[in-house]
Amino acid sequence: MDMDWHRLSDVLAMAATVAFAVTAVLAIRADRPVDIFGATVLGLITAVGGGTIRDVVVDVPVFWVQDLSYVWVAVGASLAAFVVRSVFSQRHIASLMDYLDGFGAAMFGIQATGKVWDLGMGLPAVPVILGVTTAIGGGLIRDMLAGRTTLLMRPELYAVPVLLGCILFTLVLAYFPEHRFYGSLLCLLLSFGLRAAAIHWKLQMPGFTQTK
Amino acid sequence: MDMDWHRLSDVLAMAATVAFAVTAVLAIRADRPVDIFGATVLGLITAVGGGTIRDVVVDVPVFWVQDLSYVWVAVGASLAAFVVRSVFSQRHIASLMDYLDGFGAAMFGIQATGKVWDLGMGLPAVPVILGVTTAIGGGLIRDMLAGRTTLLMRPELYAVPVLLGCILFTLVLAYFPEHRFYGSLLCLLLSFGLRAAAIHWKLQMPGFTQTK
Amino acid sequence: MDMDWHRLSDVLAMAATVAFAVTAVLAIRADRPVDIFGATVLGLITAVGGGTIRDVVVDVPVFWVQDLSYVWVAVGASLAAFVVRSVFSQRHIASLMDYLDGFGAAMFGIQATGKVWDLGMGLPAVPVILGVTTAIGGGLIRDMLAGRTTLLMRPELYAVPVLLGCILFTLVLAYFPEHRFYGSLLCLLLSFGLRAAAIHWKLQMPGFTQTK
Repeated sequence: MDMDWHRLSDVLAMAATVAFAVTAVLAIRADRPVDIFGATVLGLITAVGGGTIRDVVVDVPVFWVQDLSYVWVAVGASLAAFVVRSVFSQRHIASLMDYLDGFGAAMFGIQATGKVWDLGMGLPAVPVILGVTTAIGGGLIRDMLAGRTTLLMRPELYAVPVLLGCILFTLVLAYFPEHRFYGSLLCLLLSFGLRAAAIHWKLQMPGFTQTK
Repeated sequence: MDMDWHRLSDVLAMAATVAFAVTAVLAIRADRPVDIFGATVLGLITAVGGGTIRDVVVDVPVFWVQDLSYVWVAVGASLAAFVVRSVFSQRHIASLMDYLDGFGAAMFGIQATGKVWDLGMGLPAVPVILGVTTAIGGGLIRDMLAGRTTLLMRPELYAVPVLLGCILFTLVLAYFPEHRFYGSLLCLLLSFGLRAAAIHWKLQMPGFTQTK
Repeated sequence: MDMDWHRLSDVLAMAATVAFAVTAVLAIRADRPVDIFGATVLGLITAVGGGTIRDVVVDVPVFWVQDLSYVWVAVGASLAAFVVRSVFSQRHIASLMDYLDGFGAAMFGIQATGKVWDLGMGLPAVPVILGVTTAIGGGLIRDMLAGRTTLLMRPELYAVPVLLGCILFTLVLAYFPEHRFYGSLLCLLLSFGLRAAAIHWKLQMPGFTQTK
């Protein structure tokens, strides 16, 4: 069962890497002028930036230095997204990308929460904080580098589903550690389900304040 | 006496945490639309961001991973500031917040200078650099994430009082280590006193250049 | 021969430090209002920021904590550039600064690629990624802090010459390690030569897209 979790964890992280790199490149291209170098750097940073912060904060080897496949996959996906952009420019594909990006965020959050939990550091708050950091950190760095408004200042319901998924997963890890594998899938589904509902119904955070 | 310093150091860091979280949330809300999640993340980053950079650079365990109370206090203060904002919206309270924020910066600077000095790394420049980093780093990250002009590009006298306080404290640590406790209080008062004077008389940095 | 490389590596890094600090301060002053404190902080961050990210990611002691001379040189060069700005305001000097900055980027890239290669981490991609990070990371942080458009979103040919130089140097290190010293000089010349051509003929990246 533990083996299953580790395999699932790797699959989650790799799928999220592809999702983040592709959606980052497409979102930036639709928004700002950028060349193939800049787009690839931003795709790579979006995909590995959050996990890099996580690994540095808990002082473990940075995951993509240990396993180059994350780098190759992120660079490959970024280059592919930059080159074959016309495929993605249609409305339906762009919408699919939003869901894929939300799925990536949910996956990174759950996977990172599990990784930090296993290190036993600062339970239960640090796994949740670094789960959310892994999911949104790369996108925050990307938006600052690209001069875009970061998601912290946008009303869309993006990070809170990740936060809830990570909190729920720490409850699984604390009280039902023997159900870790299926518990992670359940948290993933709930987290992504909430995000998908937010995309579909254009849900916004309540209490989003306007400047006085 | 050494015990006294450590207790004082903890009290300084915790008080600065509250000051930074509260003033960050209030300053952002007055300036930009933000929801309770974004405000709390920005409050937390403002409070712990600078110290996180410090700990990563000197490669010691990150303080809030070791001691979760910084996280709970920063999150609690941020949430409280977001919810009870009407109390703080009046002019007098807003002004008080400026002083509290300056006090937080002075405290973080002195406390971090002492922490890095004790590690014996890169004396005397690194304790000063990381003292200033601890005091202003979180605010710089907050402003970049929120799309605001960072304090490095504003003419107000904010970081220089912190810099002077940290330099002065390294002189105490180098030449009067036996007076560390009262020396730190003196440096704190001088540093905060200069900042308070800057707030009261709206002092600006000399030589602040306009674009040609 | 190995001794030669280490001496060359130190000289490259120090020369690049001066180049980056001076050009950062001059570029910001020409663009935005800033005081002597803000300018010096931005000069220091430009000079040491990229290498700091590199050292933190590979988890070795941060170079300027180990060797304060980088800090003193960067701070001194920044202060000097701020004070004697009138010397540099003429057109010819400003142009010279562009070349110097490009030379600094090429030097930092080659030097960092060699440093990470020697650590044997994630060959061959990680030395290249961290070579480019060392060369452009400080400038990216500077531009975000100063509220300027980062080079990732500008069409000029700046980072790609560095990338090509770093890739070429990993080929030297992999296949001709006995020619490391002269190989590094050759890569440096090719990398800087391409950048110099880009400055002289105002070359831009092909495929730089405009917003739709």
